Amino acid sequence: MRFFSDNAATAHPAILDALVEANRLDTAYDGDAWSRRLDKAFSDLFETEVVALWVSTGTAANCLALAALCPPHGGVICHREAHINVDECGAPEFFTHGAKLLPADGEGAKLTPTVVEALAGGIRDDVHQVQPRALSITNATEYGLVYSPTEVAALGEVARARGYGFHMDGARFANAVAHLGCSPAELTWRAGVDALSFGFVKNGGMSAEALIFFKPELARDTLYRRKRAGHLFSKGRFLAAQLLAMLDGGLWLDNACAANRGAALLAKAAGDRLVHPVQANEVFLRVTAEEAASLRALGFDFYDWGPGEARLVISWDQDEAAIRPLAEAIAKL
Amino acid sequence: MRFFSDNAATAHPAILDALVEANRLDTAYDGDAWSRRLDKAFSDLFETEVVALWVSTGTAANCLALAALCPPHGGVICHREAHINVDECGAPEFFTHGAKLLPADGEGAKLTPTVVEALAGGIRDDVHQVQPRALSITNATEYGLVYSPTEVAALGEVARARGYGFHMDGARFANAVAHLGCSPAELTWRAGVDALSFGFVKNGGMSAEALIFFKPELARDTLYRRKRAGHLFSKGRFLAAQLLAMLDGGLWLDNACAANRGAALLAKAAGDRLVHPVQANEVFLRVTAEEAASLRALGFDFYDWGPGEARLVISWDQDEAAIRPLAEAIAKL
Amino acid sequence: MRFFSDNAATAHPAILDALVEANRLDTAYDGDAWSRRLDKAFSDLFETEVVALWVSTGTAANCLALAALCPPHGGVICHREAHINVDECGAPEFFTHGAKLLPADGEGAKLTPTVVEALAGGIRDDVHQVQPRALSITNATEYGLVYSPTEVAALGEVARARGYGFHMDGARFANAVAHLGCSPAELTWRAGVDALSFGFVKNGGMSAEALIFFKPELARDTLYRRKRAGHLFSKGRFLAAQLLAMLDGGLWLDNACAANRGAALLAKAAGDRLVHPVQANEVFLRVTAEEAASLRALGFDFYDWGPGEARLVISWDQDEAAIRPLAEAIAKL
Amino acid sequence: MRFFSDNAATAHPAILDALVEANRLDTAYDGDAWSRRLDKAFSDLFETEVVALWVSTGTAANCLALAALCPPHGGVICHREAHINVDECGAPEFFTHGAKLLPADGEGAKLTPTVVEALAGGIRDDVHQVQPRALSITNATEYGLVYSPTEVAALGEVARARGYGFHMDGARFANAVAHLGCSPAELTWRAGVDALSFGFVKNGGMSAEALIFFKPELARDTLYRRKRAGHLFSKGRFLAAQLLAMLDGGLWLDNACAANRGAALLAKAAGDRLVHPVQANEVFLRVTAEEAASLRALGFDFYDWGPGEARLVISWDQDEAAIRPLAEAIAKL
Repeated sequence: MRFFSDNAATAHPAILDALVEANRLDTAYDGDAWSRRLDKAFSDLFETEVVALWVSTGTAANCLALAALCPPHGGVICHREAHINVDECGAPEFFTHGAKLLPADGEGAKLTPTVVEALAGGIRDDVHQVQPRALSITNATEYGLVYSPTEVAALGEVARARGYGFHMDGARFANAVAHLGCSPAELTWRAGVDALSFGFVKNGGMSAEALIFFKPELARDTLYRRKRAGHLFSKGRFLAAQLLAMLDGGLWLDNACAANRGAALLAKAAGDRLVHPVQANEVFLRVTAEEAASLRALGFDFYDWGPGEARLVISWDQDEAAIRPLAEAIAKL
Repeated sequence: MRFFSDNAATAHPAILDALVEANRLDTAYDGDAWSRRLDKAFSDLFETEVVALWVSTGTAANCLALAALCPPHGGVICHREAHINVDECGAPEFFTHGAKLLPADGEGAKLTPTVVEALAGGIRDDVHQVQPRALSITNATEYGLVYSPTEVAALGEVARARGYGFHMDGARFANAVAHLGCSPAELTWRAGVDALSFGFVKNGGMSAEALIFFKPELARDTLYRRKRAGHLFSKGRFLAAQLLAMLDGGLWLDNACAANRGAALLAKAAGDRLVHPVQANEVFLRVTAEEAASLRALGFDFYDWGPGEARLVISWDQDEAAIRPLAEAIAKL
Repeated sequence: MRFFSDNAATAHPAILDALVEANRLDTAYDGDAWSRRLDKAFSDLFETEVVALWVSTGTAANCLALAALCPPHGGVICHREAHINVDECGAPEFFTHGAKLLPADGEGAKLTPTVVEALAGGIRDDVHQVQPRALSITNATEYGLVYSPTEVAALGEVARARGYGFHMDGARFANAVAHLGCSPAELTWRAGVDALSFGFVKNGGMSAEALIFFKPELARDTLYRRKRAGHLFSKGRFLAAQLLAMLDGGLWLDNACAANRGAALLAKAAGDRLVHPVQANEVFLRVTAEEAASLRALGFDFYDWGPGEARLVISWDQDEAAIRPLAEAIAKL
Repeated sequence: MRFFSDNAATAHPAILDALVEANRLDTAYDGDAWSRRLDKAFSDLFETEVVALWVSTGTAANCLALAALCPPHGGVICHREAHINVDECGAPEFFTHGAKLLPADGEGAKLTPTVVEALAGGIRDDVHQVQPRALSITNATEYGLVYSPTEVAALGEVARARGYGFHMDGARFANAVAHLGCSPAELTWRAGVDALSFGFVKNGGMSAEALIFFKPELARDTLYRRKRAGHLFSKGRFLAAQLLAMLDGGLWLDNACAANRGAALLAKAAGDRLVHPVQANEVFLRVTAEEAASLRALGFDFYDWGPGEARLVISWDQDEAAIRPLAEAIAKL
C-alpha cells in the first residue's frame, strides 16, 4: 500500500468519462466549448468575476502567477520550504526571468505577518537590493497545515499595504477548504489573494490545474506567457473538461474530504508521534529507522522526511478500509 | 464539415483506452512503468539508441530541443514561415533565453543548403553579430511539403560542417514518413538530425508529443529544463501511455496515411488550383473570395490563407466518405 | 589616415579635463554632485522635464530603453539593418528577456509609416504571434540618413495610435541635429519619442552616453535594470562629468557639425559615386576593388561595405586639412 | 572626513595619466594596442596563461564569471551575505538567466568546506531541485576577512570533487594579497579558482575591473556575453589603459597596502570594539548610537551597520595623517 504521494494516485472515473465526452471535434487551443465555460464556472464557485485558465501542472500555474505579479528585477517572499523555492528546479526564476525568491521561516511552512514584515523591513530601499514585489503562500502548506481565512487576510493586508502581489499555491487548496469548511471566496480574494493555483491533479485529476486570477487584468499578458511557455494545448478541451468535471457536483471537495478523513484516521493512531497537527491529507510522523522499516515490512510505502521522520500522504482514492491497517500498525509501534 | 486544422480533430479511441489502462497507481513524474518504456520503444522504431521524452505540446518539444542545441547568445537558422518563427509567440526565445531566430527563405517553407550557406556566410564572425549555432527545419513543412532523406542529409551536412545542432520540427513527421515510405531512421539521424519533435497530437493523439534525442547526451540537461518549464507532469504515465499506444501496431503511421490519402483526394480534385504540391495532409488552394464563400455555403469550413488562397487540413479521422463531397465541390468550382 | 569609425577617434580634451575635475571624493554610484545635475541639464536642453541616466555604451542605452518599452513577450519593430538588429549580438533580446525584433525594410535604413503599418497589419492579433509593443528608429541611420522632425512625428503618430513605445537610437543624434538645425525637442518628444539613446562616445566622448526618458515614469524600473545589468558604476561621477562637459557650451553640437562638414567635403568630391545622400558623418561610396585599393595605397583606411561599396566615417577631430587629401583622391578616381 | 566606502575615493593620478596617454586613435572595441596587452600582463602577474578581459564594474565581472560557470538551471553556492546575493539587485540571476543563488552561513562572510558540503549534501539529486554547479567566495570578504591560500584550496578541492566551477569575487583581492603577502597565483588558480573578478575601482581605479579566466576556454563565450550585456566599450583602450597602469610597477599592491595600513591603525585604536579581526581595509566597530554621533560630530562620516555597529572603510588615498585623528577619537570613546 503506497502512501508516497497524492501525485501517484489514480484519476477519478469522472475525469475519464469527461475525456470521452470531450472527444469531439471542436475549435483548437482554448476556443472550444469547454474552455469557454471555465470563467463562468469558477466565477460561480468563487462568487466573483474571475479569469480561469487551464494549465497542465502546478509548477506552471504557480510560475505563471508569479510572472504576472512580479517583474524580473523584483523579489517574491515565500517560505523557505515552499514548493516554489525547493521543488520546482528554478521554474519561478525561469518564468519570471530571474526574480529572486526571498525565503522566510515559520513553523510548518507557514508565514506570518511578523515574519514577512521583518524580512521586508530588512531590505534597503535602494537599487542595490532586490525589492519584494510579491508574496506567495501555500495552502495547505507543504507540511499539511492550513491557513485560516483570518490568517490569509492578515498576510493579504501586509501585501496590500506594501504593494505586493499576493499568490496562493493551492496544490492542496481543496484539502484546505475541506478542513476549514469555509467558502473558496473567504480563503482567497476576500482575504486579499490576487492569484490562486487551484490544484486538481493531486485530488483525483489527471492533467489539468486551474490558474485563477481574481483581478482579471492580470490574466491578459498571462495568455501570451502561457503560449510562450509551451503550455497552450492544441486540444485544450481535454483540460477544460477535466476541470469542469471536478467542479461538477462538488467532486473536488468530496475528494479532498475523503483524503482528509484518511489522514485524520492516521493522525488519531499516531498520537504524539505527529510532527505537525494534521489538518489536510499529509501526516508527518516521528519514527525511528527501525519503526519505519517495520512499517515497510508490512507493505506500507512512504518517504523518509529527514532523520527520524516519515511523510505519509493520503489520496482521494484510499478509503478507510485501505487506511485502517496502516493506522493500526502505527498505533502498535 | 471542418477542415481548419488537425489540431481540432478527435483523439483516436486507442488513446482513450490507453488512458483507462494507465489509470493505476504508479510512481509519480516519469518514474512509472509507461514512461520507463519510452526509450526502448522509440529506439526500436528509430533503429538506434535514442532518449525519448514525453512533452505535452509541440511548442514545448521544439523549444526544449532548441534550448539543448543553441546557447542564449546564439542563433537558430530556420525558414521565415517556420512555426517556431511565426506561431509560437516567442517561445523559442523564452526557452533559449533570447537566442535569435535567423530566418531564411525558400519555396513552400523549405530550406536548401544554398540558402542556409548564404545566410550563414553573410554573418561576420565577430562578437557583434549573433552567430548561428543551430538549424531547424519542419518536416512536413508548414505548407505540406516533404523533405526527402536526401534533402535532409544535404542540410545535415551543412549543419555538421558548420558545427550547428540540427533540429527537425516533426509536428507532421508521421505524414512525411507516410508520404516517403522511408524509415524514420533515414529521415532523421541517418541524415544528421540531432533532435526531433515527433508530433502525435495532430495525428490522433490527445496531449502527448515525443521529444527524441539522437545524441543521448543532449537529453541530460533537458530533463532539468523540462521540469523548470513546468512540463514535468506528476502523472506522467498518462502521457507515456498515449505515446506507446500510438507506436503500438504502427497506429501513428496508419493515421498519417489516412490523412494523407484524404488530402490526395482533394488534390486530385483541385488540379491546377493547387498552390503547392500536396505531399502530406495539407491542401492550399487558389480560390476567389466568391469561390471560398460558395464552399462555405455548402458547409465546408477552412481558413483563408492570404488573399486568394485557402488552407484545408485533413485529419486522421476524416475518411473518404467525409472528404468526397468537398472534393466534388472543389472540382465543380 | 583612418576613416573606419568614429568609435576609434580620440576623446575631446574637455572630456579629459572634466575627468580631472571630477576626481574628488564624492558619493558613490549616482548620488554625486555631477550625476545629480544631469536631469536638469538635459531637461534644459530638451525644453521639458526628462530623466537622464548615464550609461557607458550605446548598446546598453538602447537595450535599457527597449526593456522599458517592451515586455518579454512583445516585439520591437525596427529596420532590418538597425544596429539593434545586426550589431549588438542579441543584446536587445538579453535585456528584454527575449522580446522579438520585427525587422522591416526601407531605403537607407529608414522606416516609413507605410512600412510599419504593413508589418503590424500582417500580424494576427492572437496569442500565437508576437505582438509589437515598441518601435525603434535610428537617427541618423546606419547609412547616415537623417529623419526630419516631420518624418519622426509621422512614425510617432503610428506608435501612439497602436500603443507602441517609441525609441530613438541616437548614437549619431548630434549629427542629425547638426544636419537639420532643429531643436533637440522637435526631433524627439515633440515628435512622439518616449526614450532616446543620446550618443556621445562617437562624438568626442570617452565612455558615457545618455539615456533620456521623456516620460519620467519609464525611468523608475530602469534604475533597477541598470544596476542589474552591471551598468551602475561605483564612481559614476566620471560618467556624469563627461556628459556635462559635452553639454557645456554646446560642445556636442560643435563636434557633430565638424564631423558633418568633413563628410560633406567628401560627398562633394564623390559626386555620383554616393550610394546614399550624405546628411551626417558617414559617406558610402561606390568603388571598384581596384579603386578601393588605390585609395588604401595612398594611406586611407576604411571598411568595405558589401561588394563595390566602401564606408567612410568622419570623426569630430578630423579637420578639413585632414580630409582634403582624401576628397581629392576620391575626385581623381 | 569620509569613511563610507572605497568606492567614493579618488582615482590615482597614474590612472588619469594613462587616459591621456591612451587618447590616440586606435582600433575600436578591444582590438587596440592596450587591450591586446592584457592577457600577457595578467599572465605574467599570475604566472600562468590567463585570459584577461576588461569590464567596467565589479557586478559585471562577477556575473559574467558566474554565467561562464553555471547554466541557467543550476545553482551557485555563496555566502548569505555575499555581494552577489545581497547587493547586486539580482544581477547574477540576470546574467545567468535565472540560476539560483544557494546561500550558506559562516563567520565574517567566510565559507568553509564543512558548510559547503552540508549545503550540497542536503540537495536531492533529482530534477526537482536546483543542482549546484558553481561556488563563489569573496576575498577579502564583505567583512574584511581574508581567506588564506590554504583555505581557498580546501574549498577549491570541494569544488573540484563535486564538479563545480569556482569563482572568486576579488573586489578587494588586492587587499587580500597585501594582507597575506602571498603571490596572486597561490591565492587563485593554484588553489583551484577558475575565474577571478579582480577589482581595481575600489583601489584607486576609475572605471575598469579585470575578469580573469584561469581556464582560457571559459573566456570564449564570455566575449559574446560581454557584448550582449552592453559591456563591450567602443573605446575599450581607455579601460585597458587603466588596468595596465595599475599593474605597472605594482601600483595595485601599493594602493592596497596603503589602505590596509590605515585600517590597521584604526583597528589598533579600536581594541575590543572590533566586530571582526581587521585583515583588509574595512573596520567594523561596536559603537552605541551616542558614540557614533560623537564621532560624526567630529566630522567623521561612515555607515551604521545594523544596530550597535559601524563600518569604516579606508581608501588608498587616506594616509596616516588623515586617519590618525579618527583613530584617536575612537580610542577616546
